Amino acid sequence: MKALRWHGARDLRLDELQTSAPKHGEVEVQVAYCGICGSDLHEYLDGPHSIPTHEAHPISGCRAPLTLGHEFSGVVSALGDGVEGFEIGDRVAVEPIYRCGHCLYCRNGQYNLCISMGFIGLMGDGGFAERAQVPAYMLHHLPDAVSLRQAVVLEPAAVALHALRQSSLKPGDSCAVFGLGPIGLLLIMLAHLRGIERITAVDIAPERLRLAHEFGACQVLDARNLDVAQHLQRDGGIDCAFEAAGSQATLDAALHSLRKGGEAVLVGLMGEARFDAFHLVNNELRLISSVGYRGVYAELIELLASGKLDLDRVVTRCVLLEQAVSAGFDALLGDKAQIKVLVNPTPALAEA
Amino acid sequence: MKALRWHGARDLRLDELQTSAPKHGEVEVQVAYCGICGSDLHEYLDGPHSIPTHEAHPISGCRAPLTLGHEFSGVVSALGDGVEGFEIGDRVAVEPIYRCGHCLYCRNGQYNLCISMGFIGLMGDGGFAERAQVPAYMLHHLPDAVSLRQAVVLEPAAVALHALRQSSLKPGDSCAVFGLGPIGLLLIMLAHLRGIERITAVDIAPERLRLAHEFGACQVLDARNLDVAQHLQRDGGIDCAFEAAGSQATLDAALHSLRKGGEAVLVGLMGEARFDAFHLVNNELRLISSVGYRGVYAELIELLASGKLDLDRVVTRCVLLEQAVSAGFDALLGDKAQIKVLVNPTPALAEA
Ligand SMILES: [Zn+2]
Ligand SMILES: [Zn+2]
Repeated sequence: MKALRWHGARDLRLDELQTSAPKHGEVEVQVAYCGICGSDLHEYLDGPHSIPTHEAHPISGCRAPLTLGHEFSGVVSALGDGVEGFEIGDRVAVEPIYRCGHCLYCRNGQYNLCISMGFIGLMGDGGFAERAQVPAYMLHHLPDAVSLRQAVVLEPAAVALHALRQSSLKPGDSCAVFGLGPIGLLLIMLAHLRGIERITAVDIAPERLRLAHEFGACQVLDARNLDVAQHLQRDGGIDCAFEAAGSQATLDAALHSLRKGGEAVLVGLMGEARFDAFHLVNNELRLISSVGYRGVYAELIELLASGKLDLDRVVTRCVLLEQAVSAGFDALLGDKAQIKVLVNPTPALAEA
Repeated sequence: MKALRWHGARDLRLDELQTSAPKHGEVEVQVAYCGICGSDLHEYLDGPHSIPTHEAHPISGCRAPLTLGHEFSGVVSALGDGVEGFEIGDRVAVEPIYRCGHCLYCRNGQYNLCISMGFIGLMGDGGFAERAQVPAYMLHHLPDAVSLRQAVVLEPAAVALHALRQSSLKPGDSCAVFGLGPIGLLLIMLAHLRGIERITAVDIAPERLRLAHEFGACQVLDARNLDVAQHLQRDGGIDCAFEAAGSQATLDAALHSLRKGGEAVLVGLMGEARFDAFHLVNNELRLISSVGYRGVYAELIELLASGKLDLDRVVTRCVLLEQAVSAGFDALLGDKAQIKVLVNPTPALAEA
């Protein structure tokens, strides 16, 4: 079968692989769609960041070269021993977090904090392939009303929903989202769906600000032309700011946009950062963070099935596996109008 | 009357002042005790920091020179018009936060975040004087079982209790307190009283570590000889870290001592600070903060009256107003064994 494998920075290859039967506890999924994520782009541009290149990941047993792709959906095509609850032909979404199942965090249900936590498609062979072998605990059944194409966006939506759950945001509060990549846009969509009315979107790309407005932001601010923090302080500051860009400038703007007692949620990744501790303490601010997700897929699948949530709205393009690098990775790096690009490794499973 | 007034850095003067009758809504308190706080020391050393020197504070109407001292207790000696609930001779503690009473935060009971918030004794004439004129809303009646000497430590204890309330710390959790000034030591005393069993105290002064152990810390760590974060990570990290020293090194140690999903509470004040945002997000840490207090005096006065709390344990010395600079301010700056030094401006109100 064909698989798009990471061999090094700027070195993604469409390799022809032999496959074996799924191992004990694993399920083989014929991949319908696999989304390209910001972390895939980072690995492509100047990785390895999360990809193990020397020691194999303790749960997957994998190291580079490996197949990228952690946002995927498909159809069960083979079952390993000991798998219950799945049949060949079942339509499934993958929740791609490896977990050990027995550490303190796993026992608490906080498997996103598992001491051996990893992502399939970064620490093990993922979904940019015709077939993927996946631990059964990663799979979620899809109701008939949920398309495979919608289901592939569950993963970034899960990141956004977990960030909302980590926050103290409640109906009646105001919030701002800094950085309108897929996570930022999904944060707006989900906050709106959860009854938050006063949502401000901040970015520097007009096409993304327009989408944010469509998704429920009542105010969109172009950070190129405006001191965003000063603007938001004119109305007394906001209750909650989501930093989804991963930069010092947006972190500063997020913290300085808050009312006293407000909360900033770090979702974007960055390295060493600075903050004004005097300002933080004197205004009794909170800087919290969110990584991955836990226990959010069921709620999202219900929202999709009910028709209240339409994740297809962030999908801007769908390409075949052969075009994944040129029309997917390179397009996302060069064109701000591209939000979520899907790869369709199995043309027979493509939906309208 | 005599009052210790701040005229400039290193310039505290024992001035002789004329006093007038208390204004509408104010109460005159004959001061029994007034504690010397870290912020008083900062103003003495290299102020002004909080003291208004050009524009008068919007609530107090004061600017320098002014009488320092915001931790005080005493006896009501005169009443302004419109004051209800107090009589001459009443024993009282002062909760020294100025508040406007009508801003969004005041209306929510969050008067520590009032947009005009200030402290009597920093932004208005305070307690290092024979008498102080205080807005009636700052006063708390003292039951007979609570001495004036214990009551003076209510103010730093309020800072500590509010920080505990801001945190998510609950019985069964572990915590560490970084920095064993009066606030750090009171945090330990109050956490212990609230049923927290696993308390680690961190400092570089052996005499303070000894006190922390007496107050309920089950583990005391001398940061001069140990990588504290590494040591605490050996047991999986702690649930909650209180940064009560206000330095970059202790902030780093506090954040790196946490378990995944743990919480650091900034209580100490510092300026620009750094943190490892990648570490914060990947471990889903929270960095929250606490400033002043709100609505905590009643609980503390009850704890004192019941005998469960003995705030006298942090008092290491008591001096007359004439000795406040030499035996108080200078002693605190030079001797780590001094924790809380009280000044007794009215010798007739001194207690055994
Ligand atoms: Zn685990
Ligand atoms: Zn106010």
